[in-house]
Amino acid sequence: MSIARAHSNIALIKYWGKRHEVLKLPTNGSLSLTLDALYTDTRVSYRADLTQDQLVLNGAPAPEAMRLRVSRFLDLLRQTHGYSAYAEVVSANSFPTGAGLASSASAFAALTLAATAAAGLQLSPRQLSQLARQGSGSACRSIFGGFAEWLPGTADADASSYAEGLKTELPVWMAVLVLNQGHKATGSGDGMARTVATSPLYSVWPATASADLQALKAALAAGDLAAVGELMEHNALAMHATALAARPPVIYWQPETLALIQHVQQLRSAGHACWFTIDAGPNIKVLLPAGAEATLQALRSHPAVQQVFCCSTGPAAHLNPAEPLV
Amino acid sequence: MSIARAHSNIALIKYWGKRHEVLKLPTNGSLSLTLDALYTDTRVSYRADLTQDQLVLNGAPAPEAMRLRVSRFLDLLRQTHGYSAYAEVVSANSFPTGAGLASSASAFAALTLAATAAAGLQLSPRQLSQLARQGSGSACRSIFGGFAEWLPGTADADASSYAEGLKTELPVWMAVLVLNQGHKATGSGDGMARTVATSPLYSVWPATASADLQALKAALAAGDLAAVGELMEHNALAMHATALAARPPVIYWQPETLALIQHVQQLRSAGHACWFTIDAGPNIKVLLPAGAEATLQALRSHPAVQQVFCCSTGPAAHLNPAEPLV
Repeated sequence: MSIARAHSNIALIKYWGKRHEVLKLPTNGSLSLTLDALYTDTRVSYRADLTQDQLVLNGAPAPEAMRLRVSRFLDLLRQTHGYSAYAEVVSANSFPTGAGLASSASAFAALTLAATAAAGLQLSPRQLSQLARQGSGSACRSIFGGFAEWLPGTADADASSYAEGLKTELPVWMAVLVLNQGHKATGSGDGMARTVATSPLYSVWPATASADLQALKAALAAGDLAAVGELMEHNALAMHATALAARPPVIYWQPETLALIQHVQQLRSAGHACWFTIDAGPNIKVLLPAGAEATLQALRSHPAVQQVFCCSTGPAAHLNPAEPLV
Repeated sequence: MSIARAHSNIALIKYWGKRHEVLKLPTNGSLSLTLDALYTDTRVSYRADLTQDQLVLNGAPAPEAMRLRVSRFLDLLRQTHGYSAYAEVVSANSFPTGAGLASSASAFAALTLAATAAAGLQLSPRQLSQLARQGSGSACRSIFGGFAEWLPGTADADASSYAEGLKTELPVWMAVLVLNQGHKATGSGDGMARTVATSPLYSVWPATASADLQALKAALAAGDLAAVGELMEHNALAMHATALAARPPVIYWQPETLALIQHVQQLRSAGHACWFTIDAGPNIKVLLPAGAEATLQALRSHPAVQQVFCCSTGPAAHLNPAEPLV
C-alpha cells in the first residue's frame, strides 16, 4: 500500500493539441508552475481478492467512466512492469471538485507515484513523468515542484516526451479565481481535438507556442516577472484564439471571464503587478509577486469572483504526505 | 451643389488588414450587406470664396482631425479630376453617432458621390467605389445596394480594387444591437494595424478569409441562409481571434458582447434562425430571416441591449434622396 500526494499545476505556456492521441504526445512544449494549495492524495493497494480495479473519489465510488479511465492507466503500468493484481484506489482532492479547477494533472501524477510504489517499483522522476503523461498529458508536469517544462519529444517516441523541473526560483503567487459562472460547456480534451481538426488558425499555434516558451524561459532565467507575465497572457490569448476559430467555435469564456481580464488590466494600469492566464474553462488564474496582499485583495473584491485559492510554489509529487486526505 | 445618400454596410466576411496604407488596398476580399435604416446624407458645394474645405457634421463644425481627413480626400478628387475649388461639406447620419456604429463607410461613400456630382462628374459605380475606398476602405462597398463584394485587387494597382454588387437577393434582416457598454478602447484602424504587425495568427488570416468568402458566395447563390450565417460567425470569430493574439492584445469584446454571443447561440438552439457578427467594437449584429419578428423581439429583450436598429437590405448610394437630412 502506498499513499502519494501530487500538486496541481497551471501552465504559463499551454499544452494545446496532441500529435498522438493514445500516447498523449503534444504538438508543442509547455511550461507550468506547480501549486502548493491544490493537491490530490491517492492511496493504492493491490489486492488479490479483487476482480477489477476499484476507485473511490472524495469518499464515494467514482463514476464508471472515471473508474475505467483509471483502470486502463493501471493496465499500462501492469503491462510495462509485469504484474497483474487489481488495485483499490482511494483518492481525494484538497479543493472542491466541479468548481472548474483542473484536477486530472494532480490526480494522474499522484496515481502514477502511488501505483508504482505500491507495486514495489522505484522509478526516477523522468520515468514517472513519462508514465503520468499517458494518464493525462499535463500530469507529467505535476511530478515536479516549482516551474516545470514538458518536452514535446520526437516523432512517436513515447520515451522522448516528459517534464523536467526548472532551476528557476521566482517568488510568485498564483491566485486561482473561481468565477460565479463556473459552467464548462466543452471539455478540454474535446475542445483541443476540435481546434486541431477544424481551426484554420491552429496551423501557426505550434510555432507560436514554441517561440513563447523560449522567450518565457529566458524571462524566468532573468527573473523578469513582467516579461514572464506578458508572455503568459499572450500565450493564453493565442490558445483561446485558435479555439474561437474552430468549427463550431470553442468558446471557453463567460462574460465574467472577460470582466476579470479587464479587471486585471485595470489593476495593472493602476500599478499592481499581476497577469492572467485562462485554461480550457471560464476561470481566471492570476500570477503576482509573492506577498502582494493588496493585489490579492483587489482581485478578490471583484463581484464576479466566487472563491479564491491563493497558491505559492508547490513541491514535487511525493510519498507519505503529512496529514493525508485518504 | 449635390446631395447624396449612402447606406452603412455590415461585413459578413471582414475587411481586416491593409497591404497598402495610403491606397487602402486590403489583404483580403470582403463581402457585405448594405442596410436601409442606417445612412449618411452629405451635401457638397464648391465655393470660390472658401480658403479651405469646411465640414459640418450633424449640425456642428466637425473636429479638426475629421475635417482634415475629409479635406485630404477632396484633394485626391481635385487632383484626379483637375479642379481646384474648396468645398463646403454638410453631412448628417440617420443614426446617433458615438454609439459604436460604423459610420465611415456610409460617410465616405456619400461624400464621394456628392463631391464628384457637385464637380459635374458622372462616374460609374466602379469608379465611385474605387475612389470611396481611398477615403475609408469599407466605403467602397456602400456604393452598392444589397450584398456587395470588395475585390482585393492585384499588387499596388489602385484601379484593381473596388466593390461589385452581387446578384443575390436573400430576404434578410440585420439587427444592429447597441449594447449598454459601448466604449471602444481601440479604434478599428489601430487594432487592424497592430494585429497585422504583431499577431502570430494573422499570417493565416488572408487564406482563411478567402476560403470563407468563396464558401459564403456559394451559400448565397444557393440561398442557404444557415450556411451563410455559420460562415459569417466563423469569419468574425477568426478576425477577433487574430486580434486577441496581437501584442499588446486587441480585445474589442465587452462582457456584454460575450453575453449576447451566448444569447444568439441559445436562441438558435431554441429554434430561432439567427447568427451574429462583430466588428471592431463591442456591439453585436445579428442576421435573421426578413420578417422574423419573434426572433427580433427575443434579441431585443436581453438586458444588455440598449438599442436595436432592425435593418432590411439597403439601396445603392444615390443623389437627391427623399427627405434629406442636410
